[in-house]
Amino acid sequence: MKFIHAGLNTIAMILAIVSLVAVFEYHNAGNIPNMYSLHSWIGLTAVIFYSLQLFLGFAVFLLPFAPVPLRRAVIPIHVYSGLTIFATVIATALMGITEKLIFALQNPAYSSSPPEATFVNCLGLLLVIFGALILWMASRPHWKRPPEENAKALLPVGGTAEGTEAESTMTDGSQADKADLRINSDAARKQNLKLDEAAQRSTM
Amino acid sequence: MKFIHAGLNTIAMILAIVSLVAVFEYHNAGNIPNMYSLHSWIGLTAVIFYSLQLFLGFAVFLLPFAPVPLRRAVIPIHVYSGLTIFATVIATALMGITEKLIFALQNPAYSSSPPEATFVNCLGLLLVIFGALILWMASRPHWKRPPEENAKALLPVGGTAEGTEAESTMTDGSQADKADLRINSDAARKQNLKLDEAAQRSTM
Repeated sequence: MKFIHAGLNTIAMILAIVSLVAVFEYHNAGNIPNMYSLHSWIGLTAVIFYSLQLFLGFAVFLLPFAPVPLRRAVIPIHVYSGLTIFATVIATALMGITEKLIFALQNPAYSSSPPEATFVNCLGLLLVIFGALILWMASRPHWKRPPEENAKALLPVGGTAEGTEAESTMTDGSQADKADLRINSDAARKQNLKLDEAAQRSTM
Repeated sequence: MKFIHAGLNTIAMILAIVSLVAVFEYHNAGNIPNMYSLHSWIGLTAVIFYSLQLFLGFAVFLLPFAPVPLRRAVIPIHVYSGLTIFATVIATALMGITEKLIFALQNPAYSSSPPEATFVNCLGLLLVIFGALILWMASRPHWKRPPEENAKALLPVGGTAEGTEAESTMTDGSQADKADLRINSDAARKQNLKLDEAAQRSTM
């Protein structure tokens, strides 16, 4: 899962860079000024944050050097910034669509609502619906990875799950009666679950 | 808190309706077509969903008729749609800014980056930062209302907290030994807490 996520985002990043280069080349060839519009400002900001996100995500979650507490601390920020960048990119696309329709539709004008304008407006509306659906899915706790899977995913690739280890040690070393043991292991399990849940649910 | 939230949103809704009327009057007076742009389509959609949100929120959370399970089921949807409408409104504002700059700046043109364009682009960038900060605050679990307060807030105005009642009954009626009692009440409390957390954290 982790590799699919990282791989798809790397492909998307490469496509974004290719598109940016194409835009600048097109502007330069047609003597159109670069980076004057709000669309371009916010779009470039989003791409910069996206590359930062990809770089930091690679360094913290894919390379084996980052300790688990760091991963656990970074994951909510990673999810928040991923979703915020996603929303910002949708806003940038909507601004780009608005610009393009104003510039491209002159005869008949955009303001006379030709079929092309209606069609592209519908595409823009679908983009908003798409964004809302993705944010809905990403923010539902029962559509998240289960806590145990999540604990495994937080570890470096090839590492062992620390939660199960700690728990078994506690169970082996205890000399208390059965009721106390039950309380302890129960509390420990709940504590672990709660930590995992917090790490998961603290994300958007 | 509930009343401040509802009151401020009602004021915002009234202001939004006044602004919409002003826009239509302005367009009609200047013979500018209405509702042709993507900005207008998405903006009107957002206002319609906003009024629905306000109406349903009033019916479910302020009027005393809705049962607690319904409130508990609706709260994640209410929070999700509130934040999504908020993000959509920011996107609409960004499109509006883009349109206005293209239409208003002709001599010197928007594309020649006059100081006014730079200034308004900065305002647009600040709007994105503002949206990102609000979404950050709204999605952090430790910036949410504590679970007990939340359980109270879910009840009809003037009602009593059901969680404490159920727990005290369980404690009074138990004939088991102290350890079992501890396990039971502990489990019940944790169950309650978990339900409250789920209700809170299932929101964005």
